[in-house]
Amino acid sequence: MSGQATYADWIAVDWGTTHLRAWAIGPDGAIRAEAQSTKGMGGLARDGFEAALLDLVQDWLGAGPTPILACGMVGAKQGWQEAPYVPVPAKPATLAMMRATAPKDRRLDLWIVPGLSQARPADVMRGEETQIAGFLAREAGFDGVLCLPGTHTKWVHISAGEVVSFQTCMTGEMFDLLSQHSVLRHSVAAASLDQAAFAEAVSETLSRPERLAQRLFSIRADATLNGTAADVARARLSGALIGAELAATRPYWLGQDVVVAAAPALADLYARALMAQGASVRPMDAAPLTLAGLARLRMTMKDPSLP
Amino acid sequence: MSGQATYADWIAVDWGTTHLRAWAIGPDGAIRAEAQSTKGMGGLARDGFEAALLDLVQDWLGAGPTPILACGMVGAKQGWQEAPYVPVPAKPATLAMMRATAPKDRRLDLWIVPGLSQARPADVMRGEETQIAGFLAREAGFDGVLCLPGTHTKWVHISAGEVVSFQTCMTGEMFDLLSQHSVLRHSVAAASLDQAAFAEAVSETLSRPERLAQRLFSIRADATLNGTAADVARARLSGALIGAELAATRPYWLGQDVVVAAAPALADLYARALMAQGASVRPMDAAPLTLAGLARLRMTMKDPSLP
Repeated sequence: MSGQATYADWIAVDWGTTHLRAWAIGPDGAIRAEAQSTKGMGGLARDGFEAALLDLVQDWLGAGPTPILACGMVGAKQGWQEAPYVPVPAKPATLAMMRATAPKDRRLDLWIVPGLSQARPADVMRGEETQIAGFLAREAGFDGVLCLPGTHTKWVHISAGEVVSFQTCMTGEMFDLLSQHSVLRHSVAAASLDQAAFAEAVSETLSRPERLAQRLFSIRADATLNGTAADVARARLSGALIGAELAATRPYWLGQDVVVAAAPALADLYARALMAQGASVRPMDAAPLTLAGLARLRMTMKDPSLP
Repeated sequence: MSGQATYADWIAVDWGTTHLRAWAIGPDGAIRAEAQSTKGMGGLARDGFEAALLDLVQDWLGAGPTPILACGMVGAKQGWQEAPYVPVPAKPATLAMMRATAPKDRRLDLWIVPGLSQARPADVMRGEETQIAGFLAREAGFDGVLCLPGTHTKWVHISAGEVVSFQTCMTGEMFDLLSQHSVLRHSVAAASLDQAAFAEAVSETLSRPERLAQRLFSIRADATLNGTAADVARARLSGALIGAELAATRPYWLGQDVVVAAAPALADLYARALMAQGASVRPMDAAPLTLAGLARLRMTMKDPSLP
């Protein structure tokens, strides 16, 4: 890809701990090209970011500066250039957005989206604020709770276009560590989850959250003694951890309208767990939200009067 | 070490997932030699066990068979030869002990200590039953709860010389995974624990166990926003996980006499957490218990009338 045909009006960048994705956006707002690499923040020294970005986007650059809007860990303290957290309540992504002075290549007119912070209970997000902006670009009047499951699930209370409060649970990371690296790994090695066992484990953990520490090893003991099928054991682990998350986030979903945005299978899992508790839930595919959020920010840069 | 001077009357073997330890015991019961390697069950194929053992003990063998008493994962399904679990209630280690037919070298008269199992709630132990036997060799009349913290903590209700019931918590493994491999690892990188923060975290988690899933990420958020000292953050992680364990094991320690046997620093940590809850606790160094248990079994082999 080279030549004038791919010059971008602006470039959207989603730069997480383990991945880097970029989109070339044309003047009409359409995606003209996209590219990705595994050069996430976690594997880069400070002086490695610029080359990692140029690897993906240089064919999209003209002679002059091209606006680049980047969200995620690129703005962390250990990132390319720190974009300090904006405390809630706040709009999910705003012109607090920082023009970065980091790039040496003057064609890179880099803007970094700041994360959000909360003083009590202490919490932070970086990257999800852009997903939230993308969600609000579609549903401007939303008043309720947006749940963004993933490595670190974010529960976000949104009202009047602002993030009022949020809460993070490490459920996805715990599941990965326990299912891949703990004594449970052999017992839960399955590609799918038994739905009945999942529902039962969520319900048991929600009703007796104080037993979580016992429940986990039981999964292995039961597999050892009774030959539990791996898809049942995996469902019990997932259900115990998601049940513990729902126990900790009850004020976020009890009696609330909840939208769960994630990869479809994961959104479905959370939606099922929540619906079993009588919550009002709508699952949504999270894939387009980051780009939608960055596009919304680009519009706001051009026209600050937009809400 | 070779020659008649080190011939063993019998050999004690502690063979776990990651380690192998052996002791040559003389006719007077004294340790005449000891050796260890990292050839634990986890890294051995079935045909690798005999060579791993001979590496350590061959200089201790005479021409005839030498009794070898081995406990731990060597008797697991994936071990050298399976020694099936004995269901509780049961004496912690008994002549259910199995004479192994596995060794090809006839000088190895191998006996494997079976683990214990519990049907409801499903639970298993392998190795700890020998520590319990060692503990009961010292305190024959003990009636109460023995807590064996470690990678997998065992809570063991003992009465009339028998294990009545037990419960396993994966607290040590969770702590290792979260402190070394999760997003918390940078925040908790300290060599010590702040005692006040530990006590507070135990108490908070015990009183609100349903909030555990939220508490964990808070440790990182607080470190990011407020620069929490690493020994405080590490104490909060440890306290949250041990608090969750105490919440799940309350019937085991509430109003019970509890002996906590572990490496001294760990025993002390658990003892402090339990005493803050008003439990009656005695810490103990667990290091000698496995060998004491194997020695007790050796005596019982010679004189089955022993209790």
